[in-house]
Amino acid sequence: MSTPLRLGIAGLGTVGAGVVKIVRQKGNLLADRAGCPVTISAVSARDKDKDRGVTLSQYAWEDAPVALATRDDIDVYVELMGGADGPAKASVEAALKAGKDVVTANKAMLAHHGQMLAQLAEDHGAVLRFEAAVAGGIPVIKALTEGLAGNDMDRVMGVMNGTCNYILTRMQSAGLPYAEVFEEANQLGYLEADPTLDVGGIDAGHKLALLASVAFGTQVDFAAVELEGIERITIDDITQAADMGYRIKLLGVAQMSGRGLEQRMSPCLVPATSPLGQLEGGTNMVVLEGDQVEQVVLRGPGAGEGPTASAVMGDVMDIARGFRVSTFGVPAGSLSETTPAKTATPAPYYLRLSLEDKPGALAKLASVLGDAGVSIDRMRQYRHDAGAAPILIVTHKTTRDALDAAITGMDRLDVVKDAPVALRIETV
Amino acid sequence: MSTPLRLGIAGLGTVGAGVVKIVRQKGNLLADRAGCPVTISAVSARDKDKDRGVTLSQYAWEDAPVALATRDDIDVYVELMGGADGPAKASVEAALKAGKDVVTANKAMLAHHGQMLAQLAEDHGAVLRFEAAVAGGIPVIKALTEGLAGNDMDRVMGVMNGTCNYILTRMQSAGLPYAEVFEEANQLGYLEADPTLDVGGIDAGHKLALLASVAFGTQVDFAAVELEGIERITIDDITQAADMGYRIKLLGVAQMSGRGLEQRMSPCLVPATSPLGQLEGGTNMVVLEGDQVEQVVLRGPGAGEGPTASAVMGDVMDIARGFRVSTFGVPAGSLSETTPAKTATPAPYYLRLSLEDKPGALAKLASVLGDAGVSIDRMRQYRHDAGAAPILIVTHKTTRDALDAAITGMDRLDVVKDAPVALRIETV
Repeated sequence: MSTPLRLGIAGLGTVGAGVVKIVRQKGNLLADRAGCPVTISAVSARDKDKDRGVTLSQYAWEDAPVALATRDDIDVYVELMGGADGPAKASVEAALKAGKDVVTANKAMLAHHGQMLAQLAEDHGAVLRFEAAVAGGIPVIKALTEGLAGNDMDRVMGVMNGTCNYILTRMQSAGLPYAEVFEEANQLGYLEADPTLDVGGIDAGHKLALLASVAFGTQVDFAAVELEGIERITIDDITQAADMGYRIKLLGVAQMSGRGLEQRMSPCLVPATSPLGQLEGGTNMVVLEGDQVEQVVLRGPGAGEGPTASAVMGDVMDIARGFRVSTFGVPAGSLSETTPAKTATPAPYYLRLSLEDKPGALAKLASVLGDAGVSIDRMRQYRHDAGAAPILIVTHKTTRDALDAAITGMDRLDVVKDAPVALRIETV
Repeated sequence: MSTPLRLGIAGLGTVGAGVVKIVRQKGNLLADRAGCPVTISAVSARDKDKDRGVTLSQYAWEDAPVALATRDDIDVYVELMGGADGPAKASVEAALKAGKDVVTANKAMLAHHGQMLAQLAEDHGAVLRFEAAVAGGIPVIKALTEGLAGNDMDRVMGVMNGTCNYILTRMQSAGLPYAEVFEEANQLGYLEADPTLDVGGIDAGHKLALLASVAFGTQVDFAAVELEGIERITIDDITQAADMGYRIKLLGVAQMSGRGLEQRMSPCLVPATSPLGQLEGGTNMVVLEGDQVEQVVLRGPGAGEGPTASAVMGDVMDIARGFRVSTFGVPAGSLSETTPAKTATPAPYYLRLSLEDKPGALAKLASVLGDAGVSIDRMRQYRHDAGAAPILIVTHKTTRDALDAAITGMDRLDVVKDAPVALRIETV
């Protein structure tokens, strides 16, 4: 049996502790599968004395991640601290410059610095892998980069923030308003310290930008992701959507159109009977569409100690087996600069707005839609509030530009109160 | 860019032609992803003059697959002829002995000779890969062997014969009897020349045996798969199951129990709301359960030119990238001999039988069940035929042994006509 693959692990939260447990408990299995033993040389975390439910005494301790990352006795630097910049980025850079392979779960860092880090890895003959950064335990980066390497990808989609999917499905099943379920999720510890990362779609947007890069061979371009959170979704939206056979999901979509790369992370309506529509609670799902394979759907836990550690170990085992693959599937220099395209692919949209209860109001609304070239498939006034009526419109297929023109027109109408909620009905 | 990876392709049916098309049309993409060009040196098929919708004139032609497999100008032998023995096996053996890597879609060959071929590959420093043999376009072998390499697998399950799933879902949606839908599938060309391969569960059983080997590090043991086809499923079964919130699927399950490895391919009841229950038509689904990742579900096309060629190309691209992994995930010598275990994990069962319409019949039936230790959860007589009544029983959790004892007891009863149909209700 060949020489061991030696890990240095920075960050000993649940995922880091999970990785340590796997390496300790599955020595023979890992060695048999990898062809060499997998060992840990050194670890690093903020608090040396904290009890993490796992013995660390036989590993060297480093207070500074950069010092860990460049130790002579590690082959792979496993970065599990998180944060787009700061110690995570500094230590990953140091590791790559020292020719160490890197495994990370850090979506924010890669969404912001992916291109630079991929180039750095390549320049130093190192491998940089990040399966755990996207969709938790689902081996989706591997499926895209390797399993579907014979495909030109058409579209990738994903429900990749378990907290948002929990909130949306819980609103539906319990009939509770957003604010109440948000608070519930907060109490349960499901939300990030800055909840905007979850409910604003930022965390899921990071993941989408990484998926898009791997799928289309483009440079990671998180800034171009059209981001929209779930904060404005009401129980009414969920009920009305359900009534028409849809579910509302925070859905990421990346697709290449004639105008360039579309990337959007936004609440969408999807058919209730589709795999995406049926996805409940914290589970993640990714849909991969290629010219050869048609459609492959992957479903699994998006977070948690075991699933995330499983993804980290998948990357570690590939390195142990000697697999060397470019960070985003092709050499960093081959990744094309994207032409970011504002959503151009037409779709039907769901519109909810509050219309003042006076004569001629509906006529004004209808003519704004007509002027923008948006035609109505269904319309319903589903209740009657004091002085105003909630109106729901489903449009025929239209472009986002036409829809935005209509919404701008509505903003100018005195009879439309507040900004309308517009949700795309995605064909899945 | 390094030297090209040169393929020799034997078998130019839809899948073979699909692989040729991908290599011809995606030269730049494949080279960029693999780090070297992927080319075709030579091909072989039964009929040289047949029009396959793809130009072959620039490739050398070999009439004999063995001659193709050992040519000096090929690096990878792609076997797409099929058949457990004969030219497929002879040529794969020849290729491996010549140190060529092999990619195959041949489930029957691997189910019968997997251990020998894996050993042969290893002895000659060659790689033998078979992603296309299991679940078509779904990269499930890769997910198990590599992505989930940090897991001890608990159970793998799959709906892996699209024809059977088509028949069962079509019976349900159209309310048609088995024989009629079978004939329809035959007319549509969905059935193998020997339809028993499909409806008898043999084809899906081959796939399960391969999955089990990869999941549990055991030698492929197709002979130990408990096989049961869908031939006895009636429209009554489907309707009654639906009425109780279930769907009937030809489901493969492999799990390690205290007694050994259980492998069964049989029609089962699964909850209608589960991903497996929701699977319609020819689509395949595989459920992977590991101690770390919990549950990952993969869904995609199980057959067809593009999806199968996609899986073949995934293997080819891994070889082009220099990935060397053991055929079944660990060295052939490390694969353990299984202790085949007859299904021991207890489950509730669905029983349908025809009971003679005379006094005391039900009492006799109930006492046979009681004597075997099988207790009844629900029972219903759902119709009244001439002289007999169809009876449906759902048992509480019981072992297959106890159930078989009860069925043997029923065989001896003069009031039970024909052999009862017994379907496992699988927890998914």
